[in-house]
Amino acid sequence: MNDTIKSIATLLKDLDGIMIYPHVNMDGDALGSATAICLALRQLGKKAYIMINEPVPKNLDFLEIGCTTEDDSVLEEIQLSLMLDCNDINRIPGRESAFERGKLKGCIDHHQNKSSTIRFDFIRSEPKSAATGEIIYNLIKALGVEISLDMANCIFTAITTDTGNFQHINTTRRSHDIVGHLYNIEGFNSKQISALIYERKSKEALKMESMVLSNLNYYEGGKIAVGRITQDLLNEMNCTMDEADGIVQQVMSIDGVEVGCLLKQSELNVRASLRGRSYANMQAVASKFGGGGHILAAGCTFTTLDVDEAERTIVPELIKSVNRAG
Amino acid sequence: MNDTIKSIATLLKDLDGIMIYPHVNMDGDALGSATAICLALRQLGKKAYIMINEPVPKNLDFLEIGCTTEDDSVLEEIQLSLMLDCNDINRIPGRESAFERGKLKGCIDHHQNKSSTIRFDFIRSEPKSAATGEIIYNLIKALGVEISLDMANCIFTAITTDTGNFQHINTTRRSHDIVGHLYNIEGFNSKQISALIYERKSKEALKMESMVLSNLNYYEGGKIAVGRITQDLLNEMNCTMDEADGIVQQVMSIDGVEVGCLLKQSELNVRASLRGRSYANMQAVASKFGGGGHILAAGCTFTTLDVDEAERTIVPELIKSVNRAG
Repeated sequence: MNDTIKSIATLLKDLDGIMIYPHVNMDGDALGSATAICLALRQLGKKAYIMINEPVPKNLDFLEIGCTTEDDSVLEEIQLSLMLDCNDINRIPGRESAFERGKLKGCIDHHQNKSSTIRFDFIRSEPKSAATGEIIYNLIKALGVEISLDMANCIFTAITTDTGNFQHINTTRRSHDIVGHLYNIEGFNSKQISALIYERKSKEALKMESMVLSNLNYYEGGKIAVGRITQDLLNEMNCTMDEADGIVQQVMSIDGVEVGCLLKQSELNVRASLRGRSYANMQAVASKFGGGGHILAAGCTFTTLDVDEAERTIVPELIKSVNRAG
Repeated sequence: MNDTIKSIATLLKDLDGIMIYPHVNMDGDALGSATAICLALRQLGKKAYIMINEPVPKNLDFLEIGCTTEDDSVLEEIQLSLMLDCNDINRIPGRESAFERGKLKGCIDHHQNKSSTIRFDFIRSEPKSAATGEIIYNLIKALGVEISLDMANCIFTAITTDTGNFQHINTTRRSHDIVGHLYNIEGFNSKQISALIYERKSKEALKMESMVLSNLNYYEGGKIAVGRITQDLLNEMNCTMDEADGIVQQVMSIDGVEVGCLLKQSELNVRASLRGRSYANMQAVASKFGGGGHILAAGCTFTTLDVDEAERTIVPELIKSVNRAG
């Protein structure tokens, strides 16, 4: 079922016209991995693009190095549609028909594999990899492509963001080994990349963050903390939702909090970002509402509820999750 | 001048009665390194202690595993006084005479070596090491001691805190190599340690932080950001000043900020924590007011001014610092 890196590399070498699909709400791992493999394929003389249909988050704009397109017709023939950092069609909404154009369909991911509706021609699934970026690093090596500085920056972004700067439980010796190797690449400067990712917060975004964090709702004696980002708050502070990305991690820095939940209200829906500290199963909670993710980091979307209703709906499940075990 | 790890290991093997001195205002690297080498020396059957004269910071309490003492008379004979993560007597105030008791005096550090008033019998100075913990890791290896889980936790704490979780400019391939090796040790769980270090903030401290960060004063079109922590705020929020430790780093995450300044009012004085992002010389500003530090991280104290006066006094110098170069 699980194809080897080597066999995928062998297959890729024979293909041309590759369209790469990172998941919606792209993050550092999705876009970093996609850009790294896109650059490597181009290095081999192949036509390759990353298809997206949403703006690149501001803090990841430095990964925009000519790989993304919103128009799949840039490739006349698509020999491979490659799904990255996700494994189901519902993770690439609005791009499904473009994805179908690929003669072959592949998937490289570190999320738990659900029974997919897609018949993939190959899958590389490594749930123990901290980031899809780790798999891509090994794939680029297997392709025989030398890691360039741009690729190194992509891989570093992928791994450092998905491991919470090497602090999360998913971090392994391999995460450190791979990033350690990046330091051998001429010009690699982790601080520079890190500053681009983390140190370009607007004054307004910092204030918005502060307002969310000083108005958390606590449940179960402080084991659960829920923050809310409403459209009103965003409008008032002149912020966009992607500027709220780091807040849920800050919620997790509170003593005694086992579950952090951030409710993000867009014009269309309310999205819940869920984090568990050690035992509460966020994947289970998210899947109750049609979402998914990892045990300790998951998410789901409420399409018909406002923020208050979403909070009233999800909190009882969060309470169950902290009381079920631990 | 710089002794080798090997020669220091050889010397240590022949000694007994070792008192270790981390620097004042101990941090994760100082206490982590001290505890790791203390445990290794004990593993070799030696009597060894860490002498301190201040409480261990709350977020590092898990490093308290029977190594620290406030009383140097626990050792009848001190064959070696070992200064760690600092290299001058003024970094161990109140412990100078105890330090003098050592028949031999040694120093292991990664700070730039100033002309010390101490005549050390050996010095290992590695300014390119991200943390003293890296040097200690190599020393424990050279001693032939197997790294235990407790030692691994100490080394991880030392390196992750001093590298800003592998983001600061001091991080190297070696930092990742060493931490990568720790994952081979049975039971090592970086997330657990990381949560102890970073995720035990009180609800009140988070709120206090948020209030400081949503009330920053900006100068020079946003190049300078000044935050204020008053006694009134601490009292109102039921917080202590050491809970404000991470705030200045958050100020530096703002786009366009070259200089961050945090004014901390105690009952005695107002202390300014100064940070530069890339070029502004904070050491120069601090030294104008009798303080000191590094170029990009320095501090000074105003003993006769209130917070408003301190801000009015220091801001003109901060403005000069951002306009002088860059």
